[in-house]
Amino acid sequence: MLESTSSPARAHQLPEGSSGWVRVRGAREHNLRGVDVDIPRDCLVVFTGVSGSGKSSLAFGTVFAEAQRRYFESVAPYARRLIDQVGAPEIDSLDGLPPAVALKQSRGGTSSRSSLGTISSLSDVLRLLFSRAGSYPAGAAHLPAAAFSPNTVVGACPTCHGLGVGRSTTEELLVPDPTLSINDGAIAVWASRGWQGVNFRRIASELGYDIDLPFQEFSREDRDWLLFSDEEPTVRVNVREGGNDRPYNGTWYSARNYLMRNYAKTESESQRQRLEPYIVVGACPTCNGKRLGQAALSVTFGGFDISELARMPLSRLCEVLDAGLDAQSHGVDEHGAPAASAARALVKDLGVRVEAIVRLGLGYLSMDRSSVNLSPGELQRIRLASQLRSGLFGVLYVMDEPSAGLHPADAAALYEALQQLISAGNSLFVVEHDLDIARRADWLVDVGPRAGSEGGRVVHSGPPHALEHVTDSVTAGFMFPADGPRRHEARTAQSWRHFADLSRNNLQNVSVDIPMGVMTTITGVSGSGKTSMLADIIERVDAQNDVENTPQRIISIDQKPIGRSPRSNLATYTGLFDTVRQLFAKTAEAEQRGFTASRFSFNVDGGRCPTCKGEGFISIELVFMPDNYSPCPTCEGSRYNPETLEVRFEGANIAEVLGMTVEDAREFFAAVPPVRRALDALTDVGLEYLTLGQPATELSGGEAQRIKLATELQRPTRTGTIFVLDEPTGGLHPANVRYLVEVFESLTATGNTVIAVEHNMDVVAASDWVIELGPAGGDRGGRVVAAATPADLLHHPDSVTAPYLARATG
Amino acid sequence: MLESTSSPARAHQLPEGSSGWVRVRGAREHNLRGVDVDIPRDCLVVFTGVSGSGKSSLAFGTVFAEAQRRYFESVAPYARRLIDQVGAPEIDSLDGLPPAVALKQSRGGTSSRSSLGTISSLSDVLRLLFSRAGSYPAGAAHLPAAAFSPNTVVGACPTCHGLGVGRSTTEELLVPDPTLSINDGAIAVWASRGWQGVNFRRIASELGYDIDLPFQEFSREDRDWLLFSDEEPTVRVNVREGGNDRPYNGTWYSARNYLMRNYAKTESESQRQRLEPYIVVGACPTCNGKRLGQAALSVTFGGFDISELARMPLSRLCEVLDAGLDAQSHGVDEHGAPAASAARALVKDLGVRVEAIVRLGLGYLSMDRSSVNLSPGELQRIRLASQLRSGLFGVLYVMDEPSAGLHPADAAALYEALQQLISAGNSLFVVEHDLDIARRADWLVDVGPRAGSEGGRVVHSGPPHALEHVTDSVTAGFMFPADGPRRHEARTAQSWRHFADLSRNNLQNVSVDIPMGVMTTITGVSGSGKTSMLADIIERVDAQNDVENTPQRIISIDQKPIGRSPRSNLATYTGLFDTVRQLFAKTAEAEQRGFTASRFSFNVDGGRCPTCKGEGFISIELVFMPDNYSPCPTCEGSRYNPETLEVRFEGANIAEVLGMTVEDAREFFAAVPPVRRALDALTDVGLEYLTLGQPATELSGGEAQRIKLATELQRPTRTGTIFVLDEPTGGLHPANVRYLVEVFESLTATGNTVIAVEHNMDVVAASDWVIELGPAGGDRGGRVVAAATPADLLHHPDSVTAPYLARATG
Ligand SMILES: Nc1ncnc2c1ncn2[C@@H]1O[C@H](COP(=O)(O)OP(=O)(O)O)[C@@H](O)[C@H]1O
Ligand SMILES: Nc1ncnc2c1ncn2[C@@H]1O[C@H](COP(=O)(O)OP(=O)(O)O)[C@@H](O)[C@H]1O
Ligand SMILES: Nc1ncnc2c1ncn2[C@@H]1O[C@H](COP(=O)(O)OP(=O)(O)O)[C@@H](O)[C@H]1O
Ligand SMILES: Nc1ncnc2c1ncn2[C@@H]1O[C@H](COP(=O)(O)OP(=O)(O)O)[C@@H](O)[C@H]1O
Ligand SMILES: [Zn+2]
Ligand SMILES: [Zn+2]
Ligand SMILES: [Zn+2]
Ligand SMILES: [Zn+2]
Repeated sequence: MLESTSSPARAHQLPEGSSGWVRVRGAREHNLRGVDVDIPRDCLVVFTGVSGSGKSSLAFGTVFAEAQRRYFESVAPYARRLIDQVGAPEIDSLDGLPPAVALKQSRGGTSSRSSLGTISSLSDVLRLLFSRAGSYPAGAAHLPAAAFSPNTVVGACPTCHGLGVGRSTTEELLVPDPTLSINDGAIAVWASRGWQGVNFRRIASELGYDIDLPFQEFSREDRDWLLFSDEEPTVRVNVREGGNDRPYNGTWYSARNYLMRNYAKTESESQRQRLEPYIVVGACPTCNGKRLGQAALSVTFGGFDISELARMPLSRLCEVLDAGLDAQSHGVDEHGAPAASAARALVKDLGVRVEAIVRLGLGYLSMDRSSVNLSPGELQRIRLASQLRSGLFGVLYVMDEPSAGLHPADAAALYEALQQLISAGNSLFVVEHDLDIARRADWLVDVGPRAGSEGGRVVHSGPPHALEHVTDSVTAGFMFPADGPRRHEARTAQSWRHFADLSRNNLQNVSVDIPMGVMTTITGVSGSGKTSMLADIIERVDAQNDVENTPQRIISIDQKPIGRSPRSNLATYTGLFDTVRQLFAKTAEAEQRGFTASRFSFNVDGGRCPTCKGEGFISIELVFMPDNYSPCPTCEGSRYNPETLEVRFEGANIAEVLGMTVEDAREFFAAVPPVRRALDALTDVGLEYLTLGQPATELSGGEAQRIKLATELQRPTRTGTIFVLDEPTGGLHPANVRYLVEVFESLTATGNTVIAVEHNMDVVAASDWVIELGPAGGDRGGRVVAAATPADLLHHPDSVTAPYLARATG
Repeated sequence: MLESTSSPARAHQLPEGSSGWVRVRGAREHNLRGVDVDIPRDCLVVFTGVSGSGKSSLAFGTVFAEAQRRYFESVAPYARRLIDQVGAPEIDSLDGLPPAVALKQSRGGTSSRSSLGTISSLSDVLRLLFSRAGSYPAGAAHLPAAAFSPNTVVGACPTCHGLGVGRSTTEELLVPDPTLSINDGAIAVWASRGWQGVNFRRIASELGYDIDLPFQEFSREDRDWLLFSDEEPTVRVNVREGGNDRPYNGTWYSARNYLMRNYAKTESESQRQRLEPYIVVGACPTCNGKRLGQAALSVTFGGFDISELARMPLSRLCEVLDAGLDAQSHGVDEHGAPAASAARALVKDLGVRVEAIVRLGLGYLSMDRSSVNLSPGELQRIRLASQLRSGLFGVLYVMDEPSAGLHPADAAALYEALQQLISAGNSLFVVEHDLDIARRADWLVDVGPRAGSEGGRVVHSGPPHALEHVTDSVTAGFMFPADGPRRHEARTAQSWRHFADLSRNNLQNVSVDIPMGVMTTITGVSGSGKTSMLADIIERVDAQNDVENTPQRIISIDQKPIGRSPRSNLATYTGLFDTVRQLFAKTAEAEQRGFTASRFSFNVDGGRCPTCKGEGFISIELVFMPDNYSPCPTCEGSRYNPETLEVRFEGANIAEVLGMTVEDAREFFAAVPPVRRALDALTDVGLEYLTLGQPATELSGGEAQRIKLATELQRPTRTGTIFVLDEPTGGLHPANVRYLVEVFESLTATGNTVIAVEHNMDVVAASDWVIELGPAGGDRGGRVVAAATPADLLHHPDSVTAPYLARATG
């Protein structure tokens, strides 16, 4: 109704179901070269292109940023000064743009106190369920929802105040040598010659215990009473031994109670140190670490208390809820009473929410999993699942690589979730490298043709099938391959290394053999235990290095950020910046002014801008837009003070060097081998489009991982090293994956070993050995389903990977 | 595509152009009684119903609140705890709901430092325009946009630091008696016998000035030099007089520089007091109050500097910009140079923005008008104009009474602006009493049938014309009147009072006669001077009261809030709460516990809840949602501590009394005349639906005004009072207007006078005398266009009101 559905500049028709176009004109953010493009609303749009081509600059940096800026400016005009500081994207015009929500692969806003349950709201709903629909002990009063939270006074376990941990002791600690008698000091905590020890021995004796009997010869019952009883009898002690024989009244405390009382009451440090060896800190003994008080823990649903449900893998929780619903649908709760409709609705609601997360392949997670132990991909999919229940309409969702960390077998459910968002009335723009998802999109925007200054154009905007004939699209070559897939000959291992009884997390005492000198990929559905296996292997090699004569170098290259402030970047991380600073210090200009290499550092005072302390940015606090940085008003983002910037090396000042891409810098520093070597390595891993000074906070997990890889690659070649990587293709276009595979091949060719967790079938196909874990996630995984060469895996009857691998190998 | 366009529960078809329905189910916020209603998107929907029927509870309290909550929960999941505290509306489900933006008639977020220019962004654009497209003096360097802001170091006038005010002095102050000679003390500031005075007289003499000449006989030039020169010559003083005749070097300061230096430097209070009489605080002498430095002020556009443009009514600014554009479209700027296309775009952009505000009847305002001097209606329309340029798409705008403060002649432009928002792809829900706008809506939701517990249902949801046959709609009776309009006989004035030469703001020395003992309405387009006239009249009566023997009581009843905290409410404002507290103190229970009336106050410690200090709410800071209050967790909103709540009067505790509507309380306190009287008055002005404790912060301007009116009405009747009101019908349904007119009639019937600014033609028709100001706003208004009885006004050739009045009187 509002817009015509055709335009002279537009070659393709609006997809069915779309209400019109988002019209981008003159987008120039980052490397975008005045992009004009029309993108349909109300459908699944996938943005493709090699890394650094400008996909994110278009989808996030332009479309999302502008949508959010406009909406907040309208909703909160009084916060406009803050919003303005964040800055508007470089663009001429953008029409037909709905308010947007970004689901990014970042940890923004998670804290160690948040868990899967809190970030997904499941905890709130579960508490409500227990309050309204739990089974209460006969006669117990109903509890409010807050009583099921350990963070409230009513809910918390009174012993540990909801912390779940507490001090306790054990028989072994209290009685280190059970062959001794009490008289000989069996109960070590009051074995001293002090009056308390004498007193307790006397009382025990008065109470009829044989204090000369070896402690181990007491009955279980007697031992428990002496050590752990809460009884505190007062008895007449008729002293026999020694000089002082006046009778007195003595009160008995069990060894534990004596220990705990004194530990709690004493103000003396030496007394505390004397008692500490008898104490263990562990699960609170009252609540067993469940953090809740007795009243809350006595309420159950489906036979479990709330903390048991929170610890359960979501896939099992689903079953418990289903059983509950089933019982209710027969009109009765588990006690046979007719269930209230409100309770029924709650069980159903929780079930749907949990189901949504399980469907996205996350059934192996539990509600109490701390969010800091979740991967960015897991976090993103949890947020995605919550969005399915958000009731938002007419919103544009922008996501980056939702397939990250997903085995192809899990991708169908992801696609379904994306479709659900669309059929609820929303638009979806997804930056994605998974060509299966790209093929199924309603619309494809291919950015490129290459990275950085060779990218920044829209090569194709239209239905995926129409990409086939776009000659300058790198993506087209992979989506519509002319020649068959590349053939790999599996190479022979130099040797095999055996790892027995791996059992971290869900691994079921697994033993595996890993070939040395070639490449192994570990694959399997989400939660099957791949990362756990990698961690166990690293630990084993390290442990054996301690005892062996010829330690084996093992290098783990993970996706963690290379730094947490905008002051970290690839130049500093790879070490090339040290050489660059020395070059600047050796210029005539610098020598004349007395500037040393440290003058050119932005990490110490001296040459750096005093306002931003070398960050180039100042951070802006906006509740609704986390982690926003705005260019420093003093140095305008250059990070340095004016005098420092006057020094030039071959015509460029230090800020200009930091502004160069890896590609440009390679030419600039062609004559400086140590710098050149680092830049070559970065190019090899497909990072030629990054600028030297690009802040760590702006790099994706995959980019961080490849910078780490490059840092290793530039070192003088060593042989016999094991390189361990977790999904190194994350965020990579198939074209980039091809390069990465070449890097791995050259590593193994020089005698190194590569072990990688991977879902990308091109990488699996190029490896020499595949270990597939499964069959499912969590407690249904943790087993080796298959271990074979890629060629043999194809014929393995239990492999879920085989069909996908078959497609990749043609 | 997403939804079927029909449903069994729905009687009417989706209007043309709408993409589907917002589906509300089970809305129970405030008085809503489980409302199920389908409302179309992408068109103009008007919500009607008598005051208190539940329109706002549906449009703002439910639809807007839920839309905003959902969106923020999705965008800022880490802020969810805060968002949850604000609470979700009471509702079963709400589908098809886009993100929403509210344009409310409130002052939220305006500060005294903000102006029309800053809240509308016009200031930023104007500065950019001056930076890029201003005329610079020959040879002057171009300035950055910041240099045109007095709030930056580069831009600010160096003398007053951008404040615009400064200390200065005048010849009159420095030389109070110019017949004196310098020797006799003509220059009073150094007339003292102190050494400085002697010194300056000697130097003046050495410099060749005749210090015995009467000051007035010096030339202009000499006088200026002596008083104001900035020269500071040092001269050899050869002392002749007195004993000490050693020569010395003395430095000269002009009288002003001596004064300013000493005033700035002195630490002595007595010295400062001595100097103060010579100083005036006024416009900064350097920048003339323009706040900017010379460089910025030397740049002009269309012949004006930036501060002159900021002071200009927007309608004139429009013309200046048009002229500029015109010159540019001929390819030259005002100097004949070809204009750059960027500059052309800027002029055009600014022109469009200003035009949008002017079209909404606000051409009389200037950019520098402080936002605290803007009415809520003006603020709303400025925000509305900004939204026309916001580029938002697919958003639901929710507005309350955009016609407030608008003469019917301005309403056409308003309607056009609303249509513009819709054709940009948005939905529009408007709470409105103006039946002209309701008639032109695409869809009408009538809430009622009456107020409070007698309302809360959707009486009609469909095209406006279909309302005609809805029997239980109060609105229908007014939109489709069966009988003609009511006839009013103009009554004769007791006397006339003359007001001569009114000249506040834009009034052009107007004289008017106002009839006493009857009702006068002042009408005219926005900005014509109505409010200014009212203010002048009040001032004149007050001034004459000082000199006359029998002062005339004049009571101004404005729309300002009755209090600024949630602790103010109608019970406290009208005084009825004092009586209520005494009733509680006299109960047996209270006497037994020793509770006095102050125990039942929530304004002092004692009986009130200690957590919220009697507010019942705690405020929550959310950058993006201003002024949010959440119920106090301790008292759950009751405001009192538990002991106080144990005391009951006739079965109700004090919190329950505050929760009663005026209507309920009338019955409850039927036997307590002073309380009853106040409640009757509140009912008379149509406020029977408010609860006694409803916080002042939640009341509209119209409700506040009617509470003030009721407070006056309940006082023992006095005769001869002049009641002055500014748009008392704001926020009132025609049914409520009818009651209000009756109140006015009873006031005049008992010998009082009513003077009201009004745009509501039913009120104008019911008045006895009409003064129409005009012909336009600002400097094109401020004249009396007509002054006549309503009947005569109909035939007045210059009246813009006549045609609208004719419609109202049939
Ligand atoms: N914040 C930034 N500042 C400057 N350049 C950037 C920034 N982010 C990305 N770039 C550059 O923009 C180009 C495109 O990057 P990006 O949009 O992230 O590509 P893609 O998403 O396709 O991997 C690259 O050359 C990259 O170095
Ligand atoms: N930090 C952790 N704390 C508790 N359980 C974990 C942790 N990390 C992984 N797990 C559990 O171990 C199992 C395997 O997980 P993981 O090794 O990450 O699988 P994959 O890498 O195959 O996705 C899952 O059930 C997961 O919930
Ligand atoms: N914040 C509130 N708390 C409790 N009741 C309220 C609140 N706001 C309005 N109400 C009540 O809800 C009813 C409908 O009010 P409202 O929606 O403001 O009506 P309208 O917009 O039609 O004038 C009235 O009885 C009013 O007293
Ligand atoms: N506080 C103020 N400061 C400066 N100008 C004002 C102020 N209030 C009103 N004016 C100006 O006086 C003129 C008449 O305004 P007003 O009396 O409010 O008109 P009306 O009530 O008819 O809308 C307008 O040009 C307006 O800009
Ligand atoms: Zn505990
Ligand atoms: Zn800086
Ligand atoms: Zn000044
Ligand atoms: Zn309280």
